Order: sequence, then C-alpha cells, then structure tokens
Amino acid sequence: MEANDHIEPQLSLELYAYNENTLEKHHITSFLQLHPFIASPYKFWLNVIGIKNEPLLSGIAEIFEIHSLAIEDIRNNQQRPKLEEFDNLVLLISKMLYTKGNISEIQTEQVSMVIGKNFLITFQENEFDLFDGIRTRLENPLGKMRKLGPDYLAYTLFDAIIDEYYVLLEKLYDKTEQLEDLVMANHHKSLLSQIYRHRKSMQEIKKVVWPTREILSSWKKSESTFLKKKTQPFVNNIYEHSVEIIENLEMQRESITTLVEIYMTNISLRQNEVMKTLTIIATIFIPLTFIAGVYGMNFEYMPELEWKYAYLGIWIFFVLTTAGMVYYFKKKKWF
Amino acid sequence: MEANDHIEPQLSLELYAYNENTLEKHHITSFLQLHPFIASPYKFWLNVIGIKNEPLLSGIAEIFEIHSLAIEDIRNNQQRPKLEEFDNLVLLISKMLYTKGNISEIQTEQVSMVIGKNFLITFQENEFDLFDGIRTRLENPLGKMRKLGPDYLAYTLFDAIIDEYYVLLEKLYDKTEQLEDLVMANHHKSLLSQIYRHRKSMQEIKKVVWPTREILSSWKKSESTFLKKKTQPFVNNIYEHSVEIIENLEMQRESITTLVEIYMTNISLRQNEVMKTLTIIATIFIPLTFIAGVYGMNFEYMPELEWKYAYLGIWIFFVLTTAGMVYYFKKKKWF
Amino acid sequence: MEANDHIEPQLSLELYAYNENTLEKHHITSFLQLHPFIASPYKFWLNVIGIKNEPLLSGIAEIFEIHSLAIEDIRNNQQRPKLEEFDNLVLLISKMLYTKGNISEIQTEQVSMVIGKNFLITFQENEFDLFDGIRTRLENPLGKMRKLGPDYLAYTLFDAIIDEYYVLLEKLYDKTEQLEDLVMANHHKSLLSQIYRHRKSMQEIKKVVWPTREILSSWKKSESTFLKKKTQPFVNNIYEHSVEIIENLEMQRESITTLVEIYMTNISLRQNEVMKTLTIIATIFIPLTFIAGVYGMNFEYMPELEWKYAYLGIWIFFVLTTAGMVYYFKKKKWF
Amino acid sequence: MEANDHIEPQLSLELYAYNENTLEKHHITSFLQLHPFIASPYKFWLNVIGIKNEPLLSGIAEIFEIHSLAIEDIRNNQQRPKLEEFDNLVLLISKMLYTKGNISEIQTEQVSMVIGKNFLITFQENEFDLFDGIRTRLENPLGKMRKLGPDYLAYTLFDAIIDEYYVLLEKLYDKTEQLEDLVMANHHKSLLSQIYRHRKSMQEIKKVVWPTREILSSWKKSESTFLKKKTQPFVNNIYEHSVEIIENLEMQRESITTLVEIYMTNISLRQNEVMKTLTIIATIFIPLTFIAGVYGMNFEYMPELEWKYAYLGIWIFFVLTTAGMVYYFKKKKWF
Amino acid sequence: MEANDHIEPQLSLELYAYNENTLEKHHITSFLQLHPFIASPYKFWLNVIGIKNEPLLSGIAEIFEIHSLAIEDIRNNQQRPKLEEFDNLVLLISKMLYTKGNISEIQTEQVSMVIGKNFLITFQENEFDLFDGIRTRLENPLGKMRKLGPDYLAYTLFDAIIDEYYVLLEKLYDKTEQLEDLVMANHHKSLLSQIYRHRKSMQEIKKVVWPTREILSSWKKSESTFLKKKTQPFVNNIYEHSVEIIENLEMQRESITTLVEIYMTNISLRQNEVMKTLTIIATIFIPLTFIAGVYGMNFEYMPELEWKYAYLGIWIFFVLTTAGMVYYFKKKKWF
Ligand SMILES: [Mg+2]
Ligand SMILES: [Mg+2]
Ligand SMILES: [Mg+2]
Ligand SMILES: [Mg+2]
Ligand SMILES: [Mg+2]
Ligand SMILES: [Mg+2]
Ligand SMILES: [Mg+2]
Ligand SMILES: [Mg+2]
Ligand SMILES: [Mg+2]
Ligand SMILES: [Mg+2]
Ligand SMILES: [Mg+2]
Ligand SMILES: [Mg+2]
Ligand SMILES: [Mg+2]
Ligand SMILES: [Mg+2]
Ligand SMILES: [Mg+2]
Ligand SMILES: [Mg+2]
Ligand SMILES: [Mg+2]
Ligand SMILES: [Mg+2]
Ligand SMILES: [Mg+2]
Ligand SMILES: [Mg+2]
Ligand SMILES: [Mg+2]
Ligand SMILES: [Mg+2]
Ligand SMILES: [Mg+2]
Ligand SMILES: [Mg+2]
Ligand SMILES: [Mg+2]
Ligand SMILES: [Mg+2]
Ligand SMILES: [Mg+2]
Ligand SMILES: [Mg+2]
Ligand SMILES: [Mg+2]
Ligand SMILES: [Mg+2]
Ligand SMILES: [Mg+2]
Repeated sequence: MEANDHIEPQLSLELYAYNENTLEKHHITSFLQLHPFIASPYKFWLNVIGIKNEPLLSGIAEIFEIHSLAIEDIRNNQQRPKLEEFDNLVLLISKMLYTKGNISEIQTEQVSMVIGKNFLITFQENEFDLFDGIRTRLENPLGKMRKLGPDYLAYTLFDAIIDEYYVLLEKLYDKTEQLEDLVMANHHKSLLSQIYRHRKSMQEIKKVVWPTREILSSWKKSESTFLKKKTQPFVNNIYEHSVEIIENLEMQRESITTLVEIYMTNISLRQNEVMKTLTIIATIFIPLTFIAGVYGMNFEYMPELEWKYAYLGIWIFFVLTTAGMVYYFKKKKWF
Repeated sequence: MEANDHIEPQLSLELYAYNENTLEKHHITSFLQLHPFIASPYKFWLNVIGIKNEPLLSGIAEIFEIHSLAIEDIRNNQQRPKLEEFDNLVLLISKMLYTKGNISEIQTEQVSMVIGKNFLITFQENEFDLFDGIRTRLENPLGKMRKLGPDYLAYTLFDAIIDEYYVLLEKLYDKTEQLEDLVMANHHKSLLSQIYRHRKSMQEIKKVVWPTREILSSWKKSESTFLKKKTQPFVNNIYEHSVEIIENLEMQRESITTLVEIYMTNISLRQNEVMKTLTIIATIFIPLTFIAGVYGMNFEYMPELEWKYAYLGIWIFFVLTTAGMVYYFKKKKWF
Repeated sequence: MEANDHIEPQLSLELYAYNENTLEKHHITSFLQLHPFIASPYKFWLNVIGIKNEPLLSGIAEIFEIHSLAIEDIRNNQQRPKLEEFDNLVLLISKMLYTKGNISEIQTEQVSMVIGKNFLITFQENEFDLFDGIRTRLENPLGKMRKLGPDYLAYTLFDAIIDEYYVLLEKLYDKTEQLEDLVMANHHKSLLSQIYRHRKSMQEIKKVVWPTREILSSWKKSESTFLKKKTQPFVNNIYEHSVEIIENLEMQRESITTLVEIYMTNISLRQNEVMKTLTIIATIFIPLTFIAGVYGMNFEYMPELEWKYAYLGIWIFFVLTTAGMVYYFKKKKWF
Repeated sequence: MEANDHIEPQLSLELYAYNENTLEKHHITSFLQLHPFIASPYKFWLNVIGIKNEPLLSGIAEIFEIHSLAIEDIRNNQQRPKLEEFDNLVLLISKMLYTKGNISEIQTEQVSMVIGKNFLITFQENEFDLFDGIRTRLENPLGKMRKLGPDYLAYTLFDAIIDEYYVLLEKLYDKTEQLEDLVMANHHKSLLSQIYRHRKSMQEIKKVVWPTREILSSWKKSESTFLKKKTQPFVNNIYEHSVEIIENLEMQRESITTLVEIYMTNISLRQNEVMKTLTIIATIFIPLTFIAGVYGMNFEYMPELEWKYAYLGIWIFFVLTTAGMVYYFKKKKWF
Repeated sequence: MEANDHIEPQLSLELYAYNENTLEKHHITSFLQLHPFIASPYKFWLNVIGIKNEPLLSGIAEIFEIHSLAIEDIRNNQQRPKLEEFDNLVLLISKMLYTKGNISEIQTEQVSMVIGKNFLITFQENEFDLFDGIRTRLENPLGKMRKLGPDYLAYTLFDAIIDEYYVLLEKLYDKTEQLEDLVMANHHKSLLSQIYRHRKSMQEIKKVVWPTREILSSWKKSESTFLKKKTQPFVNNIYEHSVEIIENLEMQRESITTLVEIYMTNISLRQNEVMKTLTIIATIFIPLTFIAGVYGMNFEYMPELEWKYAYLGIWIFFVLTTAGMVYYFKKKKWF
C-alpha cells in the first residue's frame, strides 16, 4: 500500500459523504484520506474519473478490497453490461449511449459502479454532466437518496443512464420515419445502405439494452445484502423501461424489414412499367415497319404499287392497326 | 394533507359504496369526504377522471398511501400494461383500445386500477361509457359483484376492456379479407403501403395484448391478499381471451406474409406476360422485316426481282413463317 | 329449480347407467329423473344434444352444480379447447374436425365433457355418429370402460375425436402432394391462391391441435380426484398422437414453403427462356436488317451496287454471320 | 394362455440366457418354454421377429404382463420413438434408418425393446444383421454386457442403431456437397426438385432423431428400477451423439437455404447478362438502321443523295457511332 | 499393468509438480515414475502429446482410473466440447481454433483435460506453443496458479484457448467488412460464393462456441469436489467471453443476411438501368424508323414525295419527336 502512495500525485477525486442529516463534499488527493470514510457511520459516494490510470485503479482496488476480476472488468471499456455479486461488494457495469446529431454514429461510455456496505464508487473514462441532476437531488435533505443506502444512489444513476436510451430511441424512430417516407415516395440507390447503417445502429443499442435487462432482472431478484429490499420497486421501474425499449427496437426492426420488402417490390413495379413502355411501342411499330418494308421491295411485279388509292389505303391500315392495339392494351390495363 | 385541501376546488369524483345489501352513490367534492369510507365496513369504488390533474392525484396518493412509483405509472399514459403488487395494494394498468371507423388509426386510453383491502380506485384521462353496463350490474343486489370483493369489480372492468379488443380484431380481420381480395383480383401500387399500415395496426394491438396476457397470468397465480381465490376462475376466463387474441393476431400476420408473397409473384407473372407479348411480336416480325429489307436493296444484279411469282412467293413465305412461329409458341404454351 | 321444470317439454336426453355388472340405457324427459342417478352407486354417461337450448343448459348446470363460467364455455361454440379443474368437477372442451370432401373447407363441432365423481356429461350442438362405436364398446361387460371411471369414458371419446384428425391429416397430405406435382410440372396462375387456402387449412387444424396437446399434457400431470391415475397411460397415448399431428403439420408447412420457392424460381427460369428467345432473334436479325437497309439507300455513288457478285456475296455474309451467332449462343449454352 | 398354445406352430424365437459365468442359446418353439427363464436367476434376451404375428405378440404380452398400450405401440410400426416406464417394465421404441444407395429413399425399421427385471425382449418386423456384432460381444465372458443388467444390453443395441444414423448423415453430407458444386458451376432446371427431395430426407431423419434425443435425455434422468445408475454414463454417450446429429442436420439445413439463395441470384445474374446482350445490340443497330432507312426514302429533293462522298461519309458515321457506343458500354462495365 | 510396461519405449511426457513453495519439472519416461506423484501432497500437471498412441492412453487410463468412455472421448478428436463429471475426476473437452491467414480455412485441435484430486492431465494431438505463457506464470511462486488447485490451472488453459477465439472473431469481422465494401461498391459473380464460405466459417466457430458456453455454464454451477468454489468467479469471466462471442457471431450473421439482400437489390437496380437504356433507344428510334420506311415505299402515287420541303419537314419531325420523347423520359426520371 505504501508503494502506491508514492505515485499518487495526480489523485483528484470527488467524494460525497452523507446521511439523513448531513452532506459533505470532499476533494480526495491521497488514498490515505479514504480510510476514515470506510470506517465511519456515513454513507459515501466516490466518483473516479480515468479508468486507464493504472496506479489509481489498483490503489482503489486495494483499499476497498475489490476482486482482481472486477477491476479488470472496470478497466476494460468493451465489457458487456453486467451485475456480479462478490462477497464484500456488488459490481455493476453499465453503458451510457449518446450520439452527436446523427443516429448512425452511436457512442458508448462505460460507467462501472461498485456498491459496498456504506459506499458507492463510480468509475468513468471521462467526466459527464449526466449526473449533475443527481448531485442536486443529493443535496435535498428530504429526498429518498439521503435516507436509503448506496444501492438507491446507484439506482438513480442507472435510471439517468437509461433515460438517455430513450433519447436515442426517439432519434432512431425519426430515422425510421424518414426511411419510410423515402421508400414510399421514391427510390435512391443509397437507400439500402442507409437501411443497412440503420440496422447496425439498432444492433448496437440492442447489444447494450439486452444485457441491461438481464442486469435489472437479476437485481430485482437479488438477495445480496448490499442490494436492499426497499430499492427493488425502483429497480423494477427501470427494468420495465428496458423491456419497453427492447419491444420498441423489435417493432422498428419489423417495420424496417417490411420497408425493404416494399422497396424491392417498387423496383419490380418500376421495371414492369419500363417493360410495358417498350413492349407497347415495339408491338405497335415493328409490324407496321414490316409492312412499310414490304412496299419498299423492288420486285418488278407488285400490282398494289400501281393502285391509285394504295398509299391512302395503307395509311388507313396503319392508323386502324395502331388504334386497335392501343385499345387492346387499354383493355389489358397496361396503361 | 391540509396543504392539498386548499387546492381542491375542481374535485368532482364518483364513489359507489356497496355491500351485499346496500349500494350508495356519492359525489365526492373534498378529500375529507373519503376518510370515513376507508374505515367503513363497506366496499367502495372510486372513479377518478383526469390523470393530468396533479393536486388530485397527489391527494388521492396521500389518502390511500399509494407508492410514488405507482402514482407515476398512473400519471404516465404511455405506461406499458402491468400488474404490480405493493404491500398495501395492487396496481393494475390496462389499455382501452378503440378506433373510429378505420382500423389503421387505433386509439389508446389508459385505465389504471388500484385494488385495496375494501376499495377499487380507477383512473382515466377521459370519461368513457364503456363502464356503464358495469354500473348497471352493480345495482343488481343478487349479482356476484356485490358479494365478492373489489378485485372482482376490477375483473369485470378489465373484462369489458378486453371485450373491446375483439371489436378491433373483427375490424382487423375485415381489413385482412379486403387485402386478400385486392391481392387476388388486381394490383394497385398502394397495396403495399396499405399492408404496411395494416401490419403497424397489428403491432399496436400486439403491444397491448402481450403484456395483458402476462398480467392475467400473474393474477391467476398471485397470492396477494387483495386478489382473492374466488376471483381467479373469472380471471382465467379473460386470460383465455388474451391467449385467443394473440393466436388470432399471429394467424393474421402469417396470412399477410403469404399475401405479400402472392402479390410479388403476381407482379412477376404479369411481367412474364408482358415479356412474352414483346418476344412473340419481335420474333415473328423482325426476321420478316429483314427479308423485306433484303428485297428493298438496290443491287443491280438481283435475279429474284424479275421473277414473275416472286412477290406472291414471298407473301406465301411470310404467311407460312408466321403460322409456323405461332404454332411453335402455342406448343410452348406461351399464349 | 322448479321454475326450470315448467319449461322442460322438449327434454330428450340419452343416459347410460353402468357398472362392471350392469348397463342400463335410460331416456330422460324430465330433470327430476336425474337426481336418483347422482346419488346412486352407478357410474353414468349423460349425452346432451343442443347447446343453444338455454333452459336445458341452465337446468343441467343447476342439478350438477356446474360453475357459471363452465356453462358459458360449453355454450360458446367458439371456445378454444381447454381442460379446467373445478372443485366438484373437471371441464374438457374438445373440437371435432371434419370435412366434406374438400380439405379447404374444414368444419368444427364442439364437444364439451364434464367429468364428475360418478358421471360424464357430454354436450354437442348436433348428434354425430362418431360415438356409436363407443356405445358398442360400453355394452361389452368385460371392457375397461365398464371397470374404470367416467374419466376413462371421456378418454375414449377424446380418442375417437383425435382419430378423426388423422383423417384430415391424410387429406391435407394428399393436397400437399397434389400441389407438389402442380409446381413441378407446370404453373397455373391459381396455384398460389390454392397454396394460400391450403395454408389456411393447416392453420385451422393447428389452432385446434395445439391447445389439444396442452390439454392432454395437463391431464397427464393432473392430480384432480376426478382424473384417475389408471387412465393416465391411456391419456399419454393420445397425447403422443397430438404431438405427432403437430410434427406432421410442421413438416408439411416447411414443404409448402419450399414449394413456393420452387414455383417462384420456375417463373424466373421461364422468364429467362423468353428473354433468351427474344435476344437470340433480335441479336441475329437486327444487324442483318441494318446491312440490308444500307444497300437500300438511294445514294447516287454506291460502287458495290454495280458489282456482279455483290448480291451473292451479301447472302454469304448473311448466312455466315447467322451461323457464327448461333455457334456463339450454343457455346454460351443459351439453347 | 392355453388358448394361445394351440396356435403356436410357427413359434421360432431366439433366446440368450446369461450371467457372468454362463451363456446359453436356446431356441424357443413353445410359450411354455419361457416360464422357467422368468423365474430363473439368469438374465436373458429374447429376440422376437414378426410384429404382425398377432398370436405371437399376445402370447408374449400375456407371459411378460406387457400393458396393452405397450403392445399396441410395438405392433404399430409408425410409432414415434419413445421411452415409457410402466410399473413392471420399461418400453423403448427406436427406429433403424437405412438406405440402399440413394439418400433420397430412406427406409425405416422399428425396433422395440422391453426391459424388465432380468430380461430384455426385442421386437422387429424383419431379421437384420445389425445386431450380429452384439451377439459376438455377448459371448465374451469378460465384457460389461455379461456383468451389467438387461438395460446395458438395450443400450448397446440402441448404440448400434444410432451408429447407423451417422452413415446416413455422411451420405446426406455428400449430397449437400454435390448440390453445392451443381449450384456453383451451373444451373439445371432439376436442381430445385433435387433440393426439395434433399430437404425431405433431412426432415425424415430429423423426425426420428429429435424424439431419440428426448428418449435419451429421459433415460439419463430416469429413476426406474429397471434402468440402472451404472448404465447412465453410457447412455449419456449416445445422448451426445443424438445432439451432434441434430446440430449437423441444422447446419446442413442452413447451408441448403444459402445455396437456394445463391441459385436464385445466379438466375438473376444470367438474366442480366442476356438483357445486356440484347440492349447492346439493339442500342447500337436500331439508330443506325434508322439512318439507313432515312437515305432509303424516295423524296425527290434529297440533296445528300447526290454528294460524291456521302456514301463514304455515312459509313464513317456508322463506324464512329458504333465505336462510341462500344466505348460507352465498356466504361459502364457492361461487358 | 505390467503388460503395458513392456511397450513403453516411446514414452516422453512433461510433468510439473508444484505447491505454493516448490515447482519441479520432471520428464516421464516410464509409467512407473507416475505412481509416487499421485500419492504425494504435491499438485501436478501432466501434459500428454499424441492421442492416437493407444498404449500411452490405455496406460494413463489405468494408472489414473479414467473411465473407458472418457478415454474414448479423449481419443476421438471429433468429440463435441463437453464437461463431464465422473466419480473420481472431471473430464473437459475443449477445442483450439486457429487459421493460417485465411478465415475460410479454420483448423481445430482438441485439448482434453482431466481434473482430479491433486492433478491435471492435458491431452493433445500435437504440441502447441499456446501454453508457453502458462508455464511461465506457473514459475511465479506468488501467482494464484501455485496457490489454487488443478482446476484453476485448467481454467487458465481454457482461458488461453478462448482468447484465441477472439483472434478468429477479429478476422471474421475483417472479412465481413471487406464483403460489405464489395457489395456496396460493385458486384462480382464470386461474391455469393465468398459469402457462402464466410457463413460456413461462422458455423464452424459457432459449433465450438455454443457447447463451450454450455460447459462454462455447467462449471459455474458445478458442485463437483474437483471444481472448487474459489475458481468459479474466474470461470464466470470466460463464460462471459463465450456469451460475447456468440452475440458477436449472431450480429455478424444478421449483417451478412442484410448484405445479401442489398446485393440482390443491386442486381435488380442494375437490370432496371439496362432495361431503361434499351427502352429509351427503342422507343425513340423504332417509330422514326417506321416513318422512314413509309417514305421508302415504292407506291406510284405518293404526293408527299414530290413536295419541295418534304425532306426538310421530315427531319424537323424526327428532331421534334426525339426531343419530345427525351423530355418525357426526363420527366419520368428515367435518366
Ligand atoms: Mg414482446
Ligand atoms: Mg421483444
Ligand atoms: Mg416480437
Ligand atoms: Mg421478442
Ligand atoms: Mg412479430
Ligand atoms: Mg426477402
Ligand atoms: Mg399457439
Ligand atoms: Mg401464438
Ligand atoms: Mg405459435
Ligand atoms: Mg407462427
Ligand atoms: Mg408470437
Ligand atoms: Mg419473403
Ligand atoms: Mg417437434
Ligand atoms: Mg416440430
Ligand atoms: Mg406456424
Ligand atoms: Mg420448424
Ligand atoms: Mg414446432
Ligand atoms: Mg426445421
Ligand atoms: Mg423469401
Ligand atoms: Mg439444433
Ligand atoms: Mg446449437
Ligand atoms: Mg431446429
Ligand atoms: Mg440452432
Ligand atoms: Mg442458427
Ligand atoms: Mg439461421
Ligand atoms: Mg429469399
Ligand atoms: Mg445470441
Ligand atoms: Mg442477444
Ligand atoms: Mg437473431
Ligand atoms: Mg439474438
Ligand atoms: Mg434480431
């Protein structure tokens, strides 16, 4: 432990110690400052920024006796969302999802939470303002957060994270509607690659939300001493959100599948139209051209050529044939 | 609580107090009027209209000790149907589905029910006449509703709601049959967008009926003191309805999938027909036109041109070739 | 009860009272006749025809204390097949399926059975001869039916009903084979609508057989006092039938899906053939026609026109070009 | 029983009585010969050929007290594979699958086994040489078969049957590879009907292997006194085989689905090629033919006709236009 | 046993005996050398190369009392991955997957592990350098491997094997991206057969990873005395890896399915383009050619032929018609 103390210069952690009556904000600059809080009757929230900072993580791990596998999961920001119960604490890995404008570029930020007897430690790569509202609520001495344990605090953070999923769902939905309009009205060549990207976005969200639902389902049923009975109705609340998001994703996926079918059918319908144009023109004029060709032949003995009204007659024939064909195609509803 | 009493002016609630012998209808204008009923040996039904009315909801919540999460679900009219058991009551969120004429515009109205020891509270956004029949049945002193608890009353309301789903199912079925006829007879360009909207309608109903089945399945197995054993065979009855509706939706969905396939095949068949027309005409006349072109050439030495029966001969050749081709196409069953 | 007695004129029920030694057939014309049987040590089978006969049903319900929900299910001939255990009896709803010649017009007849301590009551809309064989077997004093309880009698009736499903399965299978031949040999336009109707027939059977399997699975595991241990191996026997029917339906469904694919591919192949015919003819004759057109031009200075062997030469050119093209298409395996 | 003795003339059964020390082969010609074995301390295997032989089956049933439903399953050679535990014995129905050369003609032979306290009875329609190896192993006094009970003997027979499934799987796999080559290289019209038959073969195997897996899963967990603990690791071994076969079938099914897709795409690609040929020829020559047609017109005042180099010029125009078009199509990668 | 000693010449096994304080490497050349280790308080790891070496395997089996079915699984390198608990040891069959460059040629190497009271025996066909890192970690006297039992050593080996799966997943992902680019940009004829091979690669990995997940799930829940509680969090860690790999495979499979759809749509779009080119050219020039043909006819009485501006007029007509058609096609967005 002392070894770690030597390389602590950049330590700069935020810690909220609280109970029903008091709330104190501390700025932690040395690991030594943490020991009194662990032993105290206060609950506290320690927010750790920078999961790539090796000495920081191993220091925290040592002080709070976090299992090496848990620290490995916290460090690995590709970790699948999970809830794992250890003997002395509970590990929860969640994912913040956000996007800058375009739904096809979803970004992920891992938020790990360690829930112990009287503490919550949160780990993030970068500082985010998503939790500002929670800090404010923590300042309210009458709020549930101050009465209930660190697991309730973890729930409120998770709730804030899941609320952001709805923002993405909204954007996804807008994109689906936009694709719907494009398919119905028109057909660009790029439509399918847009749909491909759209499906990939859905997959990315699904990849996070499915295990999130599993986590919440486990939490609801958990008998860990660190996850209190009193918090479970609240956890059920966000569990239902996760179920709703999954159902929404599934319904959008079905809609997209149907849109692709419509798009492909429109291509076929358009090809039919092109083919009909060609066939009508060719069917009318190819036989007429043949007739004209016949009377362009140079045989010496072709009696019709000398008839007075032959030329007039052949024009009448041309016009009647054309009219007949147009009538036939109209009857067949070709145009 | 007194604070709430101050902003009660618009309070206007309907309350039915009843037991096997008596039925009294009360008009509640102040929260204070409610307390005697809670303590009384009567069962009562309180019908609350206007879930956006904040003071109304928080007043009710306080008096009946409804959990804040339950009130939040009642207020949020996008809540997924659910059954949740709290220590002192049971919350049931259901959805009325209805449509004005056109099945493609399904409307939803949330009906929340709170079942307590001796009371049922129902919450709706707007007044509906769906429950009029139940009020009438409540007036019958020999009916089961008067003998059994508030959970049985909740069941009858839920039953009335689910009965309305069948009305929609009927309309859905009519639309499916109409699409069936359209696909079989003919093919408009708008057919696929109609099918798309039709599938969306099915999804909207499915979104409500699936969790409804879950609710009813939970209710059947529930051991809550507020959900009595005696009501369970009745709940099983509407549980079976929900299963039946789901099966029907599934069968219609399969039918629609097959219809889309038929529609696409019809497009292909029609294109084949167009192509065959073109090919027959072109295959007959293009070679003939070539022959006519040959005898339209201006070479000085072309012996056939001077033959006496050349022109007659070439017409015979034209007719025979055409007849041969027509015979060939007939044999190939091209028309 | 007395009220019901007044409107009993049309009562005409068949009742078999039996034990290992005796079998008596009674014709019931008044509800009063039924009471002695209930109290007697005999087992009896009461066959009720006419489920739309309100006074009849409510009379039976009152005498045998059948739950109102059970009577409602018996009366509703759209009821999904089910097995429901009540305190004093077991309700089983089954469906007879039959068809007059054409598999695409499946007809359904509901057979409801109420199994009590010493009786079986069967309810049907119309009299059917399906149960004649069972009446004969009942007359055999050495048969199991006489030794075992009314649940065994119910089993034999259900067995007779399920045996009829195999008849339909056979017809379904014949139709599948017929469609198979049609798809392989040829392609009518009506084929897809035939397949559509065929799939609907399968759905109708599936709709009955799936819940039938559920019923039999429940019966096998039931601990009801009215469903005896001794009957369970027999029930397992028809349970296996239901599983087999479901597997058969599923396999036919897969075959039909593949047939549709083959049908669509055949359409494409045929279109390819049409297109190739057109392309071969056009590719050969269009260039030749151009050449003929060139020598049909009227320019004053066209030296070839005066050459002696020009006309012969051009015919040689025509023939060689055609032969070359034919060779090229042969090599490309276009025909 | 005596009644049966009268019609026993054709009785000719093989019986092996054995224990760790002795093995005796007996030829049974009368039912009376069987009684001493049942009562003896020896284990024995009775092999019954000819399940259509009514007196034989009912005689065996009577002597060994086989339930009438079990005998019915043994007699019905369409019976789905199953394992059923009765009070005094266990019934196992299995299927031998084999084929003479062509995988598309799979044949089935039912092998039923009845496992009792000290005996195994096997029932087959026809004699097969599949079990010869087992007879040989039985002769080895040190083998497990002699030490362990009749359930182990049943296991070895079942193992031999399942080993034959691998032979079919191998043939199926060869056919899949053959179809793969056909699809990749070329496209016959018969390919899809071959694939259709291939899928049917898979279905037939699946129909046997799925319930076989169920049987083995039940056996592994069975607590029947006739199925010993010691045999269970061996049963697990063939259980794993059945899982493996199912996975293999599933993978081949997916491959076939993909092959059909590739086949259909190849048809489209080929059609594209045909269409491009037509379009190139027509696009080049139709405009040229028009130009030739223009100078074939017979107007009196057509100044170009008299120009000296007009004919040369028009040929230059023809050649340049064609070259331009060819360049354009090359650039568009049409050929 | 002595019999085996006679044919031991080629015996050459590596054995690590270790506890928290010591690590000794032994080279085993005779089975007799093994007995002292089994009885010693040391833990040891015996690495067996060459599973086709019959006397070697049967010698090991005899000394360590490995069940004959377990030895059979070890010997059969087509064995599905599995975890099986025997009375005196646990058998784990895993698969190393690797590929030389090209993902479409995945190679498999079976690694079997036998975990006993104080030993781990590993069986491989060929020597691999994958385990070198583990040998190095074993040399570290402070590592968990030295403290914990042979099951932990087995876990580290399995972990190393599963880490290699990620290497394949990476390559698979690269290939998917490459196919994505090919589909988006262009369309070779070979694309579908590439996709076909790609899907087969996925299947091969899936075939290994699915049972691997099952193994790890069993291990997590196992109550075997040879699989210690302390190792379970580590096993959970690689269990999560297997889940992640499966999810990734599933997502790639969905992407590939969508890519095939896009590819097929691109073929259709391209065909539309070809058809439009043909139709535009033919629709413009065929009618014009007809008109030219008309004035190429040789009728004696054709007044227009003598008009002065007829030729000019007809050119104006040609140009205007063409312009009109081009305008019409532009308006229809055909090009
Ligand atoms: Mg759902
Ligand atoms: Mg879902
Ligand atoms: Mg869904
Ligand atoms: Mg789902
Ligand atoms: Mg769906
Ligand atoms: Mg598709
Ligand atoms: Mg169903
Ligand atoms: Mg369903
Ligand atoms: Mg279903
Ligand atoms: Mg379905
Ligand atoms: Mg479903
Ligand atoms: Mg489709
Ligand atoms: Mg099945
Ligand atoms: Mg099935
Ligand atoms: Mg289905
Ligand atoms: Mg299936
Ligand atoms: Mg199924
Ligand atoms: Mg299948
Ligand atoms: Mg499809
Ligand atoms: Mg499978
Ligand atoms: Mg699998
Ligand atoms: Mg399957
Ligand atoms: Mg699978
Ligand atoms: Mg799969
Ligand atoms: Mg698949
Ligand atoms: Mg397809
Ligand atoms: Mg998955
Ligand atoms: Mg998943
Ligand atoms: Mg999936
Ligand atoms: Mg999935
Ligand atoms: Mg999916």
